[in-house]
Amino acid sequence: MIRHPAFAIEPWSVRERRLDLDVLAQSESVFALSNGHIGLRGNLDEGEPHGEPGTYLNGLYELRPLPYAEAGYGYPESGQTVVNVTNGKVIRLLVNDEPFDVRYGTVHEHERVLDLRAGTLTRTVLWSSPTGTRVRVTSTRLVSFTHRAVAAIRYEVEAVDEPLRVVVQSELVANETQETTDDDPRAAARLRSPLVLEENVPNKNGPAIMVHRTRVSGIRVAAGMSHEIDGPDGTLVDADGSGDVSRLTVATNLAPGRPLRLVKYFSYGWSVRRSRAATHDQVVAALAAARLAGWDGLCADQRRFLDDFWNGADVEVEGDPEVQQAVRFGLFHLLQSAARLEERPIPAKGLTGSGYDGHAFWDTEIFVLPVLTYTYPRAVADALSWRRSIVPLARARATQLGLHGTAFPWRTIHGEECSGYWPAGTAAFHVNADIAHAVTQYVDATDDTSFERETGLPLLVGTARLWCALGHHDPAGRYRIDGVTGPDEYSAVVDNNVYTNLMAQQNLRVAAETAARHPDEAERLGVTAEETTAWRDAAAAMSVPYDEDLGVHPQHEAFTQHAPWDFAATKPDQYPLLLHFPYFDLYRKQVVKQADLVLAMHLRGDAFTAEHKARNFAYYEPLTVRDSSLSACTQAVIAAEVGHLDLAYRYLGEAALMDLEDLEKNTVDGVHMASLAGAWIVLVTGFGGMRAGQGRLGFAPKLPPEITRLAFRLRYRGSLLSVTATEETTTYELLEGPPITLTHHGDQIRLDRESVARPNPPRPPSNGQPRQPPGREPAARHTKSKGHKRR
Amino acid sequence: MIRHPAFAIEPWSVRERRLDLDVLAQSESVFALSNGHIGLRGNLDEGEPHGEPGTYLNGLYELRPLPYAEAGYGYPESGQTVVNVTNGKVIRLLVNDEPFDVRYGTVHEHERVLDLRAGTLTRTVLWSSPTGTRVRVTSTRLVSFTHRAVAAIRYEVEAVDEPLRVVVQSELVANETQETTDDDPRAAARLRSPLVLEENVPNKNGPAIMVHRTRVSGIRVAAGMSHEIDGPDGTLVDADGSGDVSRLTVATNLAPGRPLRLVKYFSYGWSVRRSRAATHDQVVAALAAARLAGWDGLCADQRRFLDDFWNGADVEVEGDPEVQQAVRFGLFHLLQSAARLEERPIPAKGLTGSGYDGHAFWDTEIFVLPVLTYTYPRAVADALSWRRSIVPLARARATQLGLHGTAFPWRTIHGEECSGYWPAGTAAFHVNADIAHAVTQYVDATDDTSFERETGLPLLVGTARLWCALGHHDPAGRYRIDGVTGPDEYSAVVDNNVYTNLMAQQNLRVAAETAARHPDEAERLGVTAEETTAWRDAAAAMSVPYDEDLGVHPQHEAFTQHAPWDFAATKPDQYPLLLHFPYFDLYRKQVVKQADLVLAMHLRGDAFTAEHKARNFAYYEPLTVRDSSLSACTQAVIAAEVGHLDLAYRYLGEAALMDLEDLEKNTVDGVHMASLAGAWIVLVTGFGGMRAGQGRLGFAPKLPPEITRLAFRLRYRGSLLSVTATEETTTYELLEGPPITLTHHGDQIRLDRESVARPNPPRPPSNGQPRQPPGREPAARHTKSKGHKRR
Repeated sequence: MIRHPAFAIEPWSVRERRLDLDVLAQSESVFALSNGHIGLRGNLDEGEPHGEPGTYLNGLYELRPLPYAEAGYGYPESGQTVVNVTNGKVIRLLVNDEPFDVRYGTVHEHERVLDLRAGTLTRTVLWSSPTGTRVRVTSTRLVSFTHRAVAAIRYEVEAVDEPLRVVVQSELVANETQETTDDDPRAAARLRSPLVLEENVPNKNGPAIMVHRTRVSGIRVAAGMSHEIDGPDGTLVDADGSGDVSRLTVATNLAPGRPLRLVKYFSYGWSVRRSRAATHDQVVAALAAARLAGWDGLCADQRRFLDDFWNGADVEVEGDPEVQQAVRFGLFHLLQSAARLEERPIPAKGLTGSGYDGHAFWDTEIFVLPVLTYTYPRAVADALSWRRSIVPLARARATQLGLHGTAFPWRTIHGEECSGYWPAGTAAFHVNADIAHAVTQYVDATDDTSFERETGLPLLVGTARLWCALGHHDPAGRYRIDGVTGPDEYSAVVDNNVYTNLMAQQNLRVAAETAARHPDEAERLGVTAEETTAWRDAAAAMSVPYDEDLGVHPQHEAFTQHAPWDFAATKPDQYPLLLHFPYFDLYRKQVVKQADLVLAMHLRGDAFTAEHKARNFAYYEPLTVRDSSLSACTQAVIAAEVGHLDLAYRYLGEAALMDLEDLEKNTVDGVHMASLAGAWIVLVTGFGGMRAGQGRLGFAPKLPPEITRLAFRLRYRGSLLSVTATEETTTYELLEGPPITLTHHGDQIRLDRESVARPNPPRPPSNGQPRQPPGREPAARHTKSKGHKRR
Repeated sequence: MIRHPAFAIEPWSVRERRLDLDVLAQSESVFALSNGHIGLRGNLDEGEPHGEPGTYLNGLYELRPLPYAEAGYGYPESGQTVVNVTNGKVIRLLVNDEPFDVRYGTVHEHERVLDLRAGTLTRTVLWSSPTGTRVRVTSTRLVSFTHRAVAAIRYEVEAVDEPLRVVVQSELVANETQETTDDDPRAAARLRSPLVLEENVPNKNGPAIMVHRTRVSGIRVAAGMSHEIDGPDGTLVDADGSGDVSRLTVATNLAPGRPLRLVKYFSYGWSVRRSRAATHDQVVAALAAARLAGWDGLCADQRRFLDDFWNGADVEVEGDPEVQQAVRFGLFHLLQSAARLEERPIPAKGLTGSGYDGHAFWDTEIFVLPVLTYTYPRAVADALSWRRSIVPLARARATQLGLHGTAFPWRTIHGEECSGYWPAGTAAFHVNADIAHAVTQYVDATDDTSFERETGLPLLVGTARLWCALGHHDPAGRYRIDGVTGPDEYSAVVDNNVYTNLMAQQNLRVAAETAARHPDEAERLGVTAEETTAWRDAAAAMSVPYDEDLGVHPQHEAFTQHAPWDFAATKPDQYPLLLHFPYFDLYRKQVVKQADLVLAMHLRGDAFTAEHKARNFAYYEPLTVRDSSLSACTQAVIAAEVGHLDLAYRYLGEAALMDLEDLEKNTVDGVHMASLAGAWIVLVTGFGGMRAGQGRLGFAPKLPPEITRLAFRLRYRGSLLSVTATEETTTYELLEGPPITLTHHGDQIRLDRESVARPNPPRPPSNGQPRQPPGREPAARHTKSKGHKRR
């Protein structure tokens, strides 16, 4: 396991007690701030050293050519990649003519704290310059949840021992130098100098504005900054701007006890359509609104916003302070990725890094949105409205592929398919059923009828039509979906992938039901009775392969007849396998990158008996190497369901600590939104046993020995529900809203004013736990001691 | 069908009676001359206009990067591409200060004749300059079969009406300007200025030499020319050279009746190891040897060489003069591609164009070598010796892929894998069994024991080891080969492709048998008794899927359960399908690009009953679109075997006329060696019913009504055999060598001094012929009238 920052284990914050430049890049992702609209990596104020400088704007991308050694029909010609835009975080400091730089002089104290309730990142440094001058720097940064286009920094510098001369330079910097990356296909294509200057207007007293345009995609981006300065008498302020830099320079003499304080507001506006003038003005306006609120006002709004969020979303985990911290850290990042989405996508890394080129995948619908559905449902409507907004592109893609309905992209920012390897991209059509699943789950959890009609139905109809074009009834009448790729990326282009077929079956059924509920809207979409009959017929006849000899479901047809992977001959440093073995070999053998059949058992649990679930889980567990971060949480959920609580608990640790411990060694590229969501998923659907759908809500709490008490809150159909489980008892309480009917281990409960407590069944015995491939057991935990930092 | 040149139908030549610039590029491929070592496209002497200038040297390539939108383990990083080297064909002419150029002035007569017995291309032109001066130009060109490194041109220019002044410039030109190509993935990547000059030594009286080196691959290439000039008194000769041009200039005054005659010898030497001086000297030496032979000597040697070839290889087709011409044209090009190979590959286009980047594929072993095995066996030993020489590269590739033995490249010039799309490249492992098949067939036909021991055994052992690494015994004991691609490129990465499995089965069996015959050599290769037992076991247990419901063999597992391709919705201009539909859609449906199961029925006919052959053929025929030129001949062979002689005859036309009529509209990129071989294959193995293997040789002649007499000659185990069939009778005659035992429609014949005549069974009725996909019937013939030009 990689070295990780000295993060302290605290329930409501992530505290880094010393600066370690070896893991600086990783900490930049962990400490990233975002509201889903703007994202700032946790770069040091002074700009360098840095792992990767990052300022991201949701939906802003540059195009890059996608080359092919051998071209093919329907291959995307250009890809989209997230761009590091104008950096407004930069505040440089000169102390008695020496630049403040942690690589020089002596760092006596260096602490950074991400406060999950305040929504701020605070840094305090005590530093001596190479000549011995001590100075204290304190900065607090936020990206506002309430002012969508605004970020702000409060920066304070103070003489410690003796008077000194300081110069503070607060900047906007575009086209920052970035390091190129290695050959890992998963790392982003960084682009050099993506922004073309249109305007640079410095301003000493009011807003300074820079306007650029991306070179190829032609997206205009305006960045602005405005300052409040509180310094000793005689403080000089100047402003200048040229090229890609706009600068406010503050020079002053400081004595101990009278610091220089500076508040920097900065803001962004971007558009492919609006003029330079309009974009410029929009940023000036946002800065004016931010100054009207003031620093204290922004901080107070931020805390109120988060208080409200935690009131409806918090999870308490007694007995495991690491997981307690991690699940809140995860929920915080999920909220950051989605709070102010407003018809833009949630990328796999949120706005915390440039990994996967800033693309959104199916991860959003299958891992992130299920959590937000029950904790911050407004964001789910936003994220799915983005899918609705790209229906014309998805329809055009389906047409290009010779299909009908909508074929949503495997990976994208703006909506066009950006996958350059079709067997693991375009062929992974399950993304369409995944979107339908998120719609179905959101509508079930919210009863949001207008969303269902205006956003849900078009998504369900388009995807149902796609499944009709992708499948066919064979001579025996079975409905087959051939030659597609399921979630497991170590198989591709297979027949009757169980996950895909079951998700498509649900997609087809729900589309028909929803069309029946909204006949006028369905008619407007051209849906006919013949069509919905065809959907129901296809769903009813859906092929679900089963291996009678082994008594398990093959992940796809013939999977269980393939050669097993030779795990004995695979060395520990040959993981992830895709970097050391050819796809052809992975595809043709029994080896699983990530939960696939097991994910089907979670999302379509109704299609499997308890016995099948246990046998299937036991079959796939020794084949699953978890070379994807999208696996541990699903394995944990089914492990818990079939009674392997110890194993589930170990997977919980892996999912929850993915980024805080950098388990996959790529947190530098941004945090893993789906894995962060996974911590919640394991606790609530794994140990809480929550299942919801078709108007039914149920729980089946089963706690592992390590967790002495688990409490979580959920929003469901306008109500706020609290569930608190110990080994013996579960207590359900309605905190807000109308009464709810739910089940506890299958027994129905009507929950109204009174809280209801029910005994839990005894914990299942922990014998007979299945094994993983050698060396691929769940990641070991560093420590289980309470209240201590991890190292 | 595309317009084609006005080629006259003549039995022993291809005569073009007028020049049509619209099909100039196509004619350059048809009129290409080669000896397998050097290849010259049929470019006009004066260099322009041209379709594509082409001078190719076998094994000389440049590297180009293979880019990937998403990289993957084991993907080749660079590709190899054939290079247009220094052009020695150029002879420019100035007539009274006006350049001789067919695009200006008036072309009164223009004839080109490729003489299949002389091995020369002759051109005669009567041309008026724009000012009305008439001149006659006659040139004859050859690439010597007997002087491996030498080509020569005899060039004559004559005043017709009045005295005139002419200047002839004979040149060597490197780095000629070439047009770039379209996006068709099948066309070659042309490289601009691939040659870096090392030396340019003009010479007026002796050899002029230019030495270059390829920019990236670093292959040194020397070109030289030497002249004999016969002109009127006062003829001036000068030489100069600079940059990439070396020039001999001849100026003279001509009166009618006293032409200027010039013989140009030119030669090439290339090597990655030899020094500039050595390469230079080698070309000077080759030119000296050519001048020693003289023009007449070269021509006489050329004819003797071809007389000998035709004596052992000719095919006579009475009743179809078009096919008569085409089969000889095909044999001539096959000989040209292979005559002086000497451990170099036979590319898919020979040395006639830059199509497919000049790469060699499995086409060589499965279509070209079977013809040469019985007509010019020495070349087969050469071609397979090239495979033997790249065993170390194939072994390294197998290791890289995590396999054992040898993994030969899908496409290459030098031996490294150059395929940039693995599902239709690396995954097509059948190329390895195809090589083993060619070895097996050659050894069976020649009894060449030293080849078997030194070349055949290492190839058989390496490929058998590969099949052991690629397959596995499933729990029921069946030997499965999963996740590979068969010949049909409209399916990929499938389980138990019948063709692959049957060819691997033969590969494994023959490897074990051959190792037993050469125990010492086998031991040197590390072959153990355990290993050969494993080969035999795998062969015996080989899985061959069969669809009991339909009573046919699925091309691969589950193929017959896939959706049929929607031919009704496919428009005529959507062929070839790969340019209009995504691979994902082609792969998942029942649509066949080229014979696959049907090819298995030809090469492994012993594995199918007659009833299966008929049913399988009837099943696949309506699914096979023949978007590949590697299909018609195989379909013809099986059509003939199962009794559809009319259909076989129509496929014969398509295979035979592929290039003479430019049926696939890409003869510009070079002639289709495999399809040209196909004409012979249809006549000899289809209508002649020839099958050979395991020491047995049989014939089963069945002629279609259009062919009144079919005669062919074969070399077999040191003998020369003649087979002559009419509708009623077949006559077998031993022309040279020891007695042969053969079968005629299953009846054994011992053939010695006396010729043997046997009656043929009656022609089968022509009813019940299977249909092809709509619009994909065999190409219609333009004319069946005899002795006329086609248009």
